Amino acid sequence: MNVKMVLAYDGSRYDGWQKQGNTQKTIQGKLEQLLTRLEGEAVEVHGAGRTDKGVHAKGQVMNCHLKQSWDEQELLKQMNHYLPEDIAVLSVEEVEPRFHARLWATGKEYHYSINMSEIPVVFGRQYIYQYGKGLDLEAMRACVPYLVGTHDFRSFCSNPRMKKSTVRQIYDIQLAVEGEQLTIKVRGEGFLYNMVRILVGTLVEVGEGKRSPGDIPGILEAKNRQAAGFTAPPEGLVLHHVEYMR
Amino acid sequence: MNVKMVLAYDGSRYDGWQKQGNTQKTIQGKLEQLLTRLEGEAVEVHGAGRTDKGVHAKGQVMNCHLKQSWDEQELLKQMNHYLPEDIAVLSVEEVEPRFHARLWATGKEYHYSINMSEIPVVFGRQYIYQYGKGLDLEAMRACVPYLVGTHDFRSFCSNPRMKKSTVRQIYDIQLAVEGEQLTIKVRGEGFLYNMVRILVGTLVEVGEGKRSPGDIPGILEAKNRQAAGFTAPPEGLVLHHVEYMR
Repeated sequence: MNVKMVLAYDGSRYDGWQKQGNTQKTIQGKLEQLLTRLEGEAVEVHGAGRTDKGVHAKGQVMNCHLKQSWDEQELLKQMNHYLPEDIAVLSVEEVEPRFHARLWATGKEYHYSINMSEIPVVFGRQYIYQYGKGLDLEAMRACVPYLVGTHDFRSFCSNPRMKKSTVRQIYDIQLAVEGEQLTIKVRGEGFLYNMVRILVGTLVEVGEGKRSPGDIPGILEAKNRQAAGFTAPPEGLVLHHVEYMR
Repeated sequence: MNVKMVLAYDGSRYDGWQKQGNTQKTIQGKLEQLLTRLEGEAVEVHGAGRTDKGVHAKGQVMNCHLKQSWDEQELLKQMNHYLPEDIAVLSVEEVEPRFHARLWATGKEYHYSINMSEIPVVFGRQYIYQYGKGLDLEAMRACVPYLVGTHDFRSFCSNPRMKKSTVRQIYDIQLAVEGEQLTIKVRGEGFLYNMVRILVGTLVEVGEGKRSPGDIPGILEAKNRQAAGFTAPPEGLVLHHVEYMR
């Protein structure tokens, strides 16, 4: 059976989603280790998004093919019983055999949280960038029209040897403010390596007055990582959800 | 100057509020250590509530007398700069010389959070009791009228050698549900050692059907810790705020 699972995890103590060699410190590694134990033979899991080291997820999606015929609720229970407390399976659903969590995804939404108060956030401090100063939100919002749409985002990619297309479509960017906490919500078809964090870093530099919204077209045109802002730290980033057509 | 500070802290890695011998693993110890360094001489802090080992606070109040004449905002900044990331000072205010955070408090509100879902909470898991099952909220709410008011709460006190009065007044108890998360909000003039956690443990046993709401008067009358329910774990408890008359 092909199984789709929605996952939440606190990425703080992991080296990211993707398995690397024989390290167990990845989310994918933890899941495959457990599923392999439950199945009694090697299981491979496919994640929709390859979250970086230290990045979190509230709605990551994965799929895997299992030989045994599991009851969905029983599998959900077993997974949550054995997984460490910083990873949870939110739902388990049998899906059609061809479903693939990454290839079938039509969109993803990431949320990046910034604390603009000089008073540090204590509860949930692991999931927020403790920036500690005010930002010019008007200027940051003025960048949005330049970024939304289909562009070559090479300047917003940390991999300088990226051979494949760096053209991506951003559906929407929203800046939501609650008290002195800013959440930047970025929805798009897919993202390059570190793209959301570089977008956020660039917006922060605009919010600081170091750059202006009118600089964005030039940054995109440069197609050079050096043209964009800093890579915002991983702890503020959460893969919020993954979208599918059906 | 007499200074009042409102504090938030994640109590997970502390032995509670109150200083014990020469251990630095208490919130009071951390604060006194820093204030003594900033002042250049010994500073004693008075907290409104003595939160237990592992218990958190979003609105603990303390006061201390300082020899130096500090600017309130500057002191707030210095404190947050040097305190560990799990303690924050939310506000600093000069108050009249006789103000005492504990003696002047007229009420306190504690919040206790319980996850009733079989799916563990990942974000904020340090601040919730992962109970994992449904509870009969109707039955739990039916206990409230028996508990609110002035009663001898000896059955709800973990200290068997408590010599002083165990009579306390509870102003209000509310059970708030959001999704499958239950928050029990208890407001009262003051609380005995472990009182809120034993109240919560007893309510949980009613919610499980092991006890009925009509048992509450008998538990109060017993004036014996053995009559009440279990002590709910510390991680779900937060000192939400402290009230003063003026």
